[in-house]
Amino acid sequence: MSSNLEWSSSEKKVARSAFDKALEVAQGKTLAEFKKKASEATTFSDMREIEDHLRQLRRDLEQLFDYRYSQLIIVFASLIRKGYLDEKLLDGLSQDKRDEIGRFLAWHARQ
Amino acid sequence: MSSNLEWSSSEKKVARSAFDKALEVAQGKTLAEFKKKASEATTFSDMREIEDHLRQLRRDLEQLFDYRYSQLIIVFASLIRKGYLDEKLLDGLSQDKRDEIGRFLAWHARQ
Repeated sequence: MSSNLEWSSSEKKVARSAFDKALEVAQGKTLAEFKKKASEATTFSDMREIEDHLRQLRRDLEQLFDYRYSQLIIVFASLIRKGYLDEKLLDGLSQDKRDEIGRFLAWHARQ
Repeated sequence: MSSNLEWSSSEKKVARSAFDKALEVAQGKTLAEFKKKASEATTFSDMREIEDHLRQLRRDLEQLFDYRYSQLIIVFASLIRKGYLDEKLLDGLSQDKRDEIGRFLAWHARQ
């Protein structure tokens, strides 16, 4: 599947830039959510829940943001689905890559 | 040392109540510090530092709040030193126990 696609040098630049932008968005959203939860915490046990939740969020992000060309198609589809990536940022990618991303999104929408 | 002291039933009540009160104070201070740090966080990396710091604080508290009679003298001395326990809450303990707590505090003050 996606692991067999070739990435031109201009596509690699588009991909890197979209990836970095999505990472910034994801980290910003996570930080904002963390600050909101922390401001609402009233007990020690609330704080422990936030700590556990935060560790899980960080692990999810580390797993999600996997910049290997063999993984990028599904990574981009996931980032779009989670609201971290604006699909327009992928405009410089070849049509076959964008179609494949679209297939993942369509597949997920059916689940 | 302290592990050989006998604890009467009334002393056990005093100890339990002082211990619980100190735990409440420690958890309250930790929560307040956490909320302050979280409100000041501006980057994802600040958030990670808070998470690491929080985990360490929790471990320190778990280690500190050790309710075994063999450990209580040094635990109470540590709680007083850290500002979590008002020494007056130990008024119902025998003089030998309070002296021993005093010796730990004096020893620490000299370090």
